[in-house]
Amino acid sequence: MKKLINSADSVVEDALNGMAAAHPSLRVRDRVVYRADGPRPGKVGLVSGGGSGHEPLHAGFVGHGMLDAACPGEVFTSPVPDQIIDATNAVDGGAGVLHIVKNYTGDVLNFEMAAELADGVEVVSVLVDDDVAVQDSLYTAGRRGTGATLFVEKMAGALAEEGAPLNEVAAVATEVNERSRSFGIALSSCTVPAAGKPTFDLPETDVELGIGIHGEPGRARVPMVSARELAGVAMEAIHSDLPLQGDLLVMVNGMGGTPLMELYVVFAEVAAFVKGKGARVARSLVGNYVTSLEMQGFSVTVCRLDDRLTRLWDAPVETPGLRWGR
Amino acid sequence: MKKLINSADSVVEDALNGMAAAHPSLRVRDRVVYRADGPRPGKVGLVSGGGSGHEPLHAGFVGHGMLDAACPGEVFTSPVPDQIIDATNAVDGGAGVLHIVKNYTGDVLNFEMAAELADGVEVVSVLVDDDVAVQDSLYTAGRRGTGATLFVEKMAGALAEEGAPLNEVAAVATEVNERSRSFGIALSSCTVPAAGKPTFDLPETDVELGIGIHGEPGRARVPMVSARELAGVAMEAIHSDLPLQGDLLVMVNGMGGTPLMELYVVFAEVAAFVKGKGARVARSLVGNYVTSLEMQGFSVTVCRLDDRLTRLWDAPVETPGLRWGR
Repeated sequence: MKKLINSADSVVEDALNGMAAAHPSLRVRDRVVYRADGPRPGKVGLVSGGGSGHEPLHAGFVGHGMLDAACPGEVFTSPVPDQIIDATNAVDGGAGVLHIVKNYTGDVLNFEMAAELADGVEVVSVLVDDDVAVQDSLYTAGRRGTGATLFVEKMAGALAEEGAPLNEVAAVATEVNERSRSFGIALSSCTVPAAGKPTFDLPETDVELGIGIHGEPGRARVPMVSARELAGVAMEAIHSDLPLQGDLLVMVNGMGGTPLMELYVVFAEVAAFVKGKGARVARSLVGNYVTSLEMQGFSVTVCRLDDRLTRLWDAPVETPGLRWGR
Repeated sequence: MKKLINSADSVVEDALNGMAAAHPSLRVRDRVVYRADGPRPGKVGLVSGGGSGHEPLHAGFVGHGMLDAACPGEVFTSPVPDQIIDATNAVDGGAGVLHIVKNYTGDVLNFEMAAELADGVEVVSVLVDDDVAVQDSLYTAGRRGTGATLFVEKMAGALAEEGAPLNEVAAVATEVNERSRSFGIALSSCTVPAAGKPTFDLPETDVELGIGIHGEPGRARVPMVSARELAGVAMEAIHSDLPLQGDLLVMVNGMGGTPLMELYVVFAEVAAFVKGKGARVARSLVGNYVTSLEMQGFSVTVCRLDDRLTRLWDAPVETPGLRWGR
C-alpha cells in the first residue's frame, strides 16, 4: 500500500486540516465541517455526512447554496451520533434542519439517533437510495445511496438558500431522489488505509458491474469491454428502472482513479445513448465527485429535470467541490 | 490494460466528442477546442496545447477569463502545426495571439512553426518551464513546464479579458512563469493507451522524486515515506530554488489517480511548511488539474503573488476545469 498519508489512524484528521487550510470559507471543529458564515437566521440548515474516502462528497459540498455542515466518519465508516448532533445544533437558524442520509444501515441509525437527541431542533431526514444495481447490499437494506446525493444536496441547498421552509426543502430533496437513478462499474478495487489491502479482488481482465461506493458487490463480474459497451450496460440498467425521457441532468462520475480523459469518452457514449432514447442531456457534470478512494471506474447518475429543478440546479453555488454563479 | 476507451486509436477523438457534448460553451473543430463565444474583436487571443492525457489541462481551461483555444495532441504527444495554425487564425480578434507553450522539444518546435505560418497574425510565444526537478529531461532541453501552465493561462487570460494589449499579456505570462516553481512525486506509473503497458516501472515500495508529467525520470527513486516527508522533499526543492516569501499561490495537484482525501493530507503539510518559512498561503488550489493519466502522486506548484497577480487570479473565470466569479 502506497498512500499519501502520515498514518492510517490520522488520515481523516489530517485531510480535514488540509481542507481547513485550503478553504477559508470552511470551519472544521470536532470532526464537523461547517460554513464559516453560518448559521443564517431563518434559513433551513442542511447536514449530510458519511464515511470519508468519497471526497469531494460531503465536506467539499459545504458552502453557499449547498450544505451547512458535513460529518465525515472514518474511511468508509459512518459518522458517530455526536458529530451529527453537534452539526445539527450548530446549523439551526431557527427554521429546522434537513438531514440528507445515504441509505447505509450505519448512517441511517446514527442520523436517526442524532435527530432524536438534537437539542430541540426540528429535524427532517431524507434518505437517498438511487443505485439501481442491487436491491439489498453488504451494508444496506434496500437500494444504496450514491451519486444522487450530490443532486439532492445541490437542489435542496438552493431552495433552502431562497428561504423556503423545512417541509418544502425536504419535499424537493425527496423528489430529486425519486427522479434520480445511478449505476456504477469498477475496473479496480481500492485500499482502505486502516485495512492495508484491497477491499476486494478483481482480476486484471474483469470489471464489476453495479459496484457500490465501498466496493460492495454488484450484479455481475464480466470481462472488460469497450467504453461504449460499459456505458450501454449502465444506461440500460438505469433506463429499465426509470425510462429516460425529457430533459435530463446527467453526471458521469469518476470513482477516484480514472483519468478525466476517459470519463469524457464515457460521457460521449452516455450522451449518444440518451439521444437514442429521444431524451435530452439538458445539464451535465463530468468528473470525480462521489469517489471511492483510488478505485478506477465510473458511475452514471441521471435525474429527470423539470423547470423548477433546472432552476435549482442552475442557482449559484460556492463550495470547494462545486462552484458556479449565473 | 483496463481503460475506459473504445480503442487506443480513437481515444482523443472520443474524449473531445465527450467534451463537446458536456460543455455547450465549447466548440470542437478539427482537433481544436474553441470558446463558442469567440473571437472577441480587440481581445488578445490565448492559445495553448500539448499532449492529451493531462486533462483538464488544456482543453478544460478554454473559456471566459482563460484560453481561447486549446490544441490537444495524441496522448503525451505534441499537437501538430496545422492544429496550432488553425487555432491561431481562428482566435485572432485583431489584437494578436499569445502562445503558451510548455517547454518540451516537440511542443516548442511545432508552436514555432505555427507562429511563422499563421496567416498574418501577430504571435508572441511564452515558454513555461517551472519544474525545478531536473535541468534537462527526456523530452526537454532546460526545465520542464508543468503546473505553472495553469497559473500562466489563468492570469494572462484574465489580463487579456480586461483588454490589455499583446505585449502586456505576454509580459504577465512571462512574469508568472518566472515567479513559479513546481516539483512532482510519483507513487505509480501510468499507461499510454497506444503503448498498452506502463510508461516506466516503479517497485511497490518506491516513489520517484521529481517525476515529469509524462513519466520522465526525476532526481531519485527512494522508498515510500510519509506524506509529511514527501511534502517536505517537494517544498525544500522549490524553496531552495526560489525562497518562499510573502503571499503565495499554492497548488497541490493530483497526478490523476490519487484520492482527493490524500491531496488534502499533502496540502496540510505544504501549508505548515510555508508557514514555517514565514510565508503565507494567500490563495490555493487542491485537486486534479495537470494530470498524467491514472498516475498516482502529486505535484506542488508555488507562485509568488503581488497585488496585481492576486487580482488576476481572483478575476472571474468560466471554464470546465476552473470556474469562479467574485
